[in-house]
Amino acid sequence: MLEFWFEFASTYSYPVAMTVGEQAEALGVEIRWRPFLLGPIFADHGMNDSPFNLNPTKGAYMWRDLERLCEDEQLRWRKPSAFPRNGLLAARVAYALQESEAIESFVQAVYVANFVDDLDISMPDVLFDCLPPELEDPELALEDAMSDATKNGLRVQTERAKTLGLFGAPSFTVGEELFWGGDRLKQALTLAAESAG
Amino acid sequence: MLEFWFEFASTYSYPVAMTVGEQAEALGVEIRWRPFLLGPIFADHGMNDSPFNLNPTKGAYMWRDLERLCEDEQLRWRKPSAFPRNGLLAARVAYALQESEAIESFVQAVYVANFVDDLDISMPDVLFDCLPPELEDPELALEDAMSDATKNGLRVQTERAKTLGLFGAPSFTVGEELFWGGDRLKQALTLAAESAG
Repeated sequence: MLEFWFEFASTYSYPVAMTVGEQAEALGVEIRWRPFLLGPIFADHGMNDSPFNLNPTKGAYMWRDLERLCEDEQLRWRKPSAFPRNGLLAARVAYALQESEAIESFVQAVYVANFVDDLDISMPDVLFDCLPPELEDPELALEDAMSDATKNGLRVQTERAKTLGLFGAPSFTVGEELFWGGDRLKQALTLAAESAG
Repeated sequence: MLEFWFEFASTYSYPVAMTVGEQAEALGVEIRWRPFLLGPIFADHGMNDSPFNLNPTKGAYMWRDLERLCEDEQLRWRKPSAFPRNGLLAARVAYALQESEAIESFVQAVYVANFVDDLDISMPDVLFDCLPPELEDPELALEDAMSDATKNGLRVQTERAKTLGLFGAPSFTVGEELFWGGDRLKQALTLAAESAG
């Protein structure tokens, strides 16, 4: 079993969210989707903005790198007009859905909204449109996202991310073993496949 | 043609330095070895130490990640007792040798000294032992490294790195196109092979 840690503001989480399901299935690895917030983790390290905004040289590189990555993986990509977008509400919806079948298509739809359609994913109506049609009661999903249980659950999950040593997204954990970045997904999946065997 | 930018203090430059020659040859790509200094670049971004020391969470991850990477690539690895080591003199020797046949084996020997044998690569006698036996006059190589021409040449090369948008090591450039990290070596080599064709 592999836990996939993602943050909706994270550009590098997008290509992984689009492909991790397929790659895990090919190796017979079960995935748990783990939304968390980077804001509180960056704040612990004295950063109050994305590292890609704080260091514009690194930022310029990241935008070009993403373009190339998405081209290689044949994923659509558009640099969003605002960055980073506030992913708090989206993360709460994802947390409320994380044990349901709907999680993968919701997460993918939010990334596409942000990084392909350049929509403001902090808006409830944008997130509503990202909910998969098979959800029986989409209004309830948004209500659940605003409940105290969800708010607190996401906070606890972010604390767990810190305890596991996470400092960026996407990340993967297999037990206590941490992997950072899409470039380590194969290594993480291999470990997860071995651990399951 | 691909320019391979490395810094002797950089842990992630080590596995690349050990394998880039072979990988480039397999694709018929010519490599230029480009030592540079990260210190002045980090200083421009307000950092006066390695980012892995400034953010210990990221640092702890890096040490584990390096262990795993080297295991996967069957490279020896030992966490050095001091980090980062001062690579200024080593970079000057490498600059003086960068257009010679000796460059690859010198660079590899310095990385092995630092990250396998835990030797202080700021010491002239350690670097002397890293010079390949085919060098006619090894004493002259160290003298060249201390010349004003070399000191200035390395400074200019580091300025060029900044102009190309470098912010870390290892990096690769193919013309103006920048790639950061060993995980982008294949992409960079592919572009270089296409550009040559």
